[in-house]
Amino acid sequence: MNDFDYQQLDDIIHSRIRLAVMSVLISVETAEFNYLKKKVNATDGNLSVHMRKLEDAEYINVTKEFVGKKPQTTYALTSKGKKAFELYVARLEKLIGK
Amino acid sequence: MNDFDYQQLDDIIHSRIRLAVMSVLISVETAEFNYLKKKVNATDGNLSVHMRKLEDAEYINVTKEFVGKKPQTTYALTSKGKKAFELYVARLEKLIGK
Repeated sequence: MNDFDYQQLDDIIHSRIRLAVMSVLISVETAEFNYLKKKVNATDGNLSVHMRKLEDAEYINVTKEFVGKKPQTTYALTSKGKKAFELYVARLEKLIGK
Repeated sequence: MNDFDYQQLDDIIHSRIRLAVMSVLISVETAEFNYLKKKVNATDGNLSVHMRKLEDAEYINVTKEFVGKKPQTTYALTSKGKKAFELYVARLEKLIGK
């Protein structure tokens, strides 16, 4: 495979906001919606759209529960998501020559 | 600055095809259009659009000349482009935890 072939980079992960989300999730066990939002500096609507895309790809698990009267949504990487992220990073590093 | 803020990543560089092009150009002095096209595995039209965007950002210089009767377009990074790429890579590495 050619290291410079742009299509080797997983498009689901590569969007800036999803890459930021995956990078947070790889560094923690689980993350709550508002925590993620603050970390990656996203708006509610924008983050929701991207989390749905990661969920559809089965890269993340979503848990919805009530804490007192407040609904809380928590995310975690699946093993499929972890593998996809590791492959993405390996290819990215080859591409940028690191 | 928060390492996970997705907006710290230069959007001009981050698109997969432009990132691939910048990665090729950082590794060579100059590159001709058809060479780049093959390297990054792009189509003519797609590559042209992205090269124009990099040119508009003053990240690359474009040289058009005739080699015999054939027109040839050659690209090179500008010093602005080199600096932007280095900053992009540094922030990317922080983001992905490398």
